Amino acid sequence: MPERNIYLEDIPLDDALVILFYIGQRGPLPTEDLPLKDALGRVTAEPIWAKLSSPHYHAAAMDGYAVRASDTLNATETRPVSLTVNRQAYPVNTGDPMPADTDAVIMIEHVEEGDKKILIRAPVAPRQHVRLMGEDMVATELVLPANHQLRPVDLGAIAGCGHHTVTVYQKPHVHIIPTGSELVPITQSPEAGEIIEYNSLVLSAQIEEIGGRVSYGEMIPDSVEHLREALQEAVAANPDLILVLSGSSAGSRDFTAHVLQEMGTLEVHGVAVRPGHPVIIGSIKGIPVMGVPGYPVSAALTGEIFIQPLLAKWLGISPPHSTNPRVEAVMTRKLVSHTGDDDFVRVALAQVGDKLLATPLTRGAGVITSLVRADGLAHIPRFSEGVDMGQPVTVMLYRPLHLIQKTIFAMGSHDPMLDLLSQYIAARYPDIRFTSANVGSMGGLIALKRGEAHLAGSHLLDPATGDYNLPYLDKYLGGIPVRVITFAHREQGMLVAKGNPQNIEALSDLVRVRFVNRQRGSGTRMLLDYELAKLGITADDIAGYEHEEVTHLAVATAIASGIADCGLGVRRAALALNLDFIPVGWERYDLIIPEASIDHVAPLIETLHDEGFREALAAQPGYDIRETGVTLPT
Amino acid sequence: MPERNIYLEDIPLDDALVILFYIGQRGPLPTEDLPLKDALGRVTAEPIWAKLSSPHYHAAAMDGYAVRASDTLNATETRPVSLTVNRQAYPVNTGDPMPADTDAVIMIEHVEEGDKKILIRAPVAPRQHVRLMGEDMVATELVLPANHQLRPVDLGAIAGCGHHTVTVYQKPHVHIIPTGSELVPITQSPEAGEIIEYNSLVLSAQIEEIGGRVSYGEMIPDSVEHLREALQEAVAANPDLILVLSGSSAGSRDFTAHVLQEMGTLEVHGVAVRPGHPVIIGSIKGIPVMGVPGYPVSAALTGEIFIQPLLAKWLGISPPHSTNPRVEAVMTRKLVSHTGDDDFVRVALAQVGDKLLATPLTRGAGVITSLVRADGLAHIPRFSEGVDMGQPVTVMLYRPLHLIQKTIFAMGSHDPMLDLLSQYIAARYPDIRFTSANVGSMGGLIALKRGEAHLAGSHLLDPATGDYNLPYLDKYLGGIPVRVITFAHREQGMLVAKGNPQNIEALSDLVRVRFVNRQRGSGTRMLLDYELAKLGITADDIAGYEHEEVTHLAVATAIASGIADCGLGVRRAALALNLDFIPVGWERYDLIIPEASIDHVAPLIETLHDEGFREALAAQPGYDIRETGVTLPT
Repeated sequence: MPERNIYLEDIPLDDALVILFYIGQRGPLPTEDLPLKDALGRVTAEPIWAKLSSPHYHAAAMDGYAVRASDTLNATETRPVSLTVNRQAYPVNTGDPMPADTDAVIMIEHVEEGDKKILIRAPVAPRQHVRLMGEDMVATELVLPANHQLRPVDLGAIAGCGHHTVTVYQKPHVHIIPTGSELVPITQSPEAGEIIEYNSLVLSAQIEEIGGRVSYGEMIPDSVEHLREALQEAVAANPDLILVLSGSSAGSRDFTAHVLQEMGTLEVHGVAVRPGHPVIIGSIKGIPVMGVPGYPVSAALTGEIFIQPLLAKWLGISPPHSTNPRVEAVMTRKLVSHTGDDDFVRVALAQVGDKLLATPLTRGAGVITSLVRADGLAHIPRFSEGVDMGQPVTVMLYRPLHLIQKTIFAMGSHDPMLDLLSQYIAARYPDIRFTSANVGSMGGLIALKRGEAHLAGSHLLDPATGDYNLPYLDKYLGGIPVRVITFAHREQGMLVAKGNPQNIEALSDLVRVRFVNRQRGSGTRMLLDYELAKLGITADDIAGYEHEEVTHLAVATAIASGIADCGLGVRRAALALNLDFIPVGWERYDLIIPEASIDHVAPLIETLHDEGFREALAAQPGYDIRETGVTLPT
Repeated sequence: MPERNIYLEDIPLDDALVILFYIGQRGPLPTEDLPLKDALGRVTAEPIWAKLSSPHYHAAAMDGYAVRASDTLNATETRPVSLTVNRQAYPVNTGDPMPADTDAVIMIEHVEEGDKKILIRAPVAPRQHVRLMGEDMVATELVLPANHQLRPVDLGAIAGCGHHTVTVYQKPHVHIIPTGSELVPITQSPEAGEIIEYNSLVLSAQIEEIGGRVSYGEMIPDSVEHLREALQEAVAANPDLILVLSGSSAGSRDFTAHVLQEMGTLEVHGVAVRPGHPVIIGSIKGIPVMGVPGYPVSAALTGEIFIQPLLAKWLGISPPHSTNPRVEAVMTRKLVSHTGDDDFVRVALAQVGDKLLATPLTRGAGVITSLVRADGLAHIPRFSEGVDMGQPVTVMLYRPLHLIQKTIFAMGSHDPMLDLLSQYIAARYPDIRFTSANVGSMGGLIALKRGEAHLAGSHLLDPATGDYNLPYLDKYLGGIPVRVITFAHREQGMLVAKGNPQNIEALSDLVRVRFVNRQRGSGTRMLLDYELAKLGITADDIAGYEHEEVTHLAVATAIASGIADCGLGVRRAALALNLDFIPVGWERYDLIIPEASIDHVAPLIETLHDEGFREALAAQPGYDIRETGVTLPT
């Protein structure tokens, strides 16, 4: 086989699924008998027929006296009938068997108890307050069908009709082989070039979630020999499905395809779906084998789109996401999609006013947090070129809509301490999440004007007045009434490597080092441009001026990793990545909240006054809470 | 304490919940550290901050060559740039660390590989096809908040940023004490008066479902001493919640209330909710204690309404049913509700034409199968007197709406072999359920006319012609076009106890025995009335004529249990309960299907021709399949 293989032909998603389900066709799974207490969530392999009736005898349904209805026919209010206890009327509690020849129960409240006699003042009907044998289930009757996933009440019904075990399908057995010379287990600290192997963790959990069980092969390096050996071992154990988790390189995927061709059949090598197209499907000795792409988002979506549905089919149940609600949402950005692919785009959702807004998260297949943070998945079908800004898109929800609707959604400037605020909000209001998208101060104001966020964080310096934010509101918000509440004062400065190896002392030094910038429209960028203009320095004078990052932490990371020497950011970012910090000055960071969103944002405003939060924020280097929570006059 | 205690005061549901949540107030649950592979579904007790960045180095994002972008500036289609391999251009696979001083990757497809050189014909931008360190997560960044229930992708993210364990809340610990002298374990065959104790099974599964863990006390008889001792032991183990499962009698509930008063506090003794009002709430040494009613539906709903929400609150998550969709459905029968109570009515749902119909299931608190069969739960709030037929009602769904909408719903005559048909439909069409409500042949036709069912089973004899069903269609369906398909011919006869102790030989013998009848409008009842009329026997001549049951099996049960001597029914019902059978004759049982429902019912019609089903039906005594599946001319 070639050492390096250029990319192969993709087939459409629908075709790939048909092939997988065809290869995965099989007779019923083997069965096992389980004690009922271990059977929650398992799937019945046979119908459950009642062994006993329930109740299995005629039972009193009330506390009182069991009588013959015919003895009571003549009772009236004024001419009560007297019945002899233990000959004509028998004391019974609820659940007691009806004594022979009795056919009705009189409630204890409706008799007058005397000495060995009771008096009754109204006739009773036959079978009154009697639970007839078989009221719930009659012996031989069907109680539950086969292929039924057992819920708590089902276990009760099965026990109630005389069974203490239940025949269920064995869990489908999936064997996972992680491959890739670069992989290290999650317990190990990775060196550069090493990757923590967690795809097997995610896929196992997905398999467990749907009701399967997993066995693992050892992690193997990229080599045909190792893979061949691992597959031989796997096949010998006769699992229901084998997953070969590819390393991230195209080379490692080709090994899988190659060995499949050699040992069995290769049916699919590449599916036209994003992210995740290098899916491989084949079989060895009748056992379906899948090659799962190495990028974590691709791997997780392969689990959702291919593996869970296949296991669900074997178990005769619905895959977990198939029943998730679908909603219509409005796209806040233009989304371009490759026409040849089914494109699965993770989105954050927010209800702003009467609009449910979908903001696409990063589409990189390596960004697992895009799945963690997603409220839902938008499917841009094959042959579509994408979705324009403001257009509707159908989103499959990962979280319940009523919780999404409570989310407080900020767009605007990034501050690392918004995470801290988010923590305190979650602790006070377990239902409410606070999320934010980093688009810079200016971007935040524009989003507010478009009605796309509940609030915006902003630290826009007005050079003329020296004030922050307020002078910009009229210009950018077009008259939307807002409340401006200060989040904190914070210290901006230059982030440089530990020990300041380039001896950077002032902004004028930027002309001789590799800079990393913030994006256009961010408050930090405007601060930089303002200070540079005072010094007469232009963009062209600075190497890396065009290298833009969208958060303080990303700037700090660029410096920590040596890709740049200096960037502008808050002190907290320097501290996080163990950098040195050269102060430039203090600034005010405000939250701009349209009056229309004030009620929705109330939990956040409350939390700004939470003593615990204020102490925690004040303890952060480079933050000053003297005006935190203060509403500014607008 | 009194031997027998008359019923005590109820409080409204909302008040009871407030009291329970007040008593159940507590600090955070204790925590534990778990390996990630064991943490699916558990709830984070602390925020997860990234320990490592991900990627933790600048990584190639494509297979190709790592270069310095500045070396490629002058490349054009006609004047390619040549770079020396391993000095200016380094072969990299996806995921490899970027070699020192390189800042971009050129895809393998875009270079011409020569001898120790590569040629490129276009410049590349800095950071092209490079995954920058921290692209996914930056060290120190918040990855997941506290109080987050872990999904498969979350485990991946936690591993990806350098953790291999996670701090989660310990599962809340619930201790269950089943009480009741009448109880036997599920492994034991019950005698008359004994009840299989399965409430602990249902409640444990509910607790397990929400993420709690259960310990069990021994089953104890109804006695203050035993309960006191069991509670002392329970309290010593310091669980988070204690459940005393009452036996079914009011007496046993009073023991719980009494002992709670003695050992701690009793706050609630009775809640105005149906079913399930004898809920008890109190505490001992700060541990919340609940008395759970003994009827299985009451117990299960107490689990759903009180216990799961309390545990969910402790875990900071949503209770399982809180996020179930609510739908509007139209009631098919009048539903009377006690104004003082919150009433929870189990309903079957069916989509017939454009209407979603809710049919209330039996409201008996002892009928666990009403929960098993329910598609949803209608909440009739306190102060409402009920819902009229044809009025809308809000239903919380237990099953996904799109599956409910596929259900094939029959109303009409009962035949035990509809269960068999249901089995075969489920096997052929895993998504489709076939359910039926037993309202008799006539009731079925009326339901079709009202548009309340997809089909009706019917065996109405026309005395004038000797034919079945067809002569009735015009009269009862008012011109709705229908298709009539024969289900089977079947044998009707008299069911009598084994050995026929009363020597019943003909219908004329009914005048000297205790009879059990079918309900008005059922085909069997009409057959009886027709035959009795021929014999000149009237209703008054027959003891038990007014004792109506709605299924063949219920009639058989009445005889098997000795409450009646004889009833009319199909041979299969006699066989099921080991009765003798005295044939009266064969009849035709048809399925009446409105043309408007034909497409919806297609899977059922198909299954009538399934060879396996036909063989199974033919093998049943008293069934003849010679015309099964045949469409009759109408």
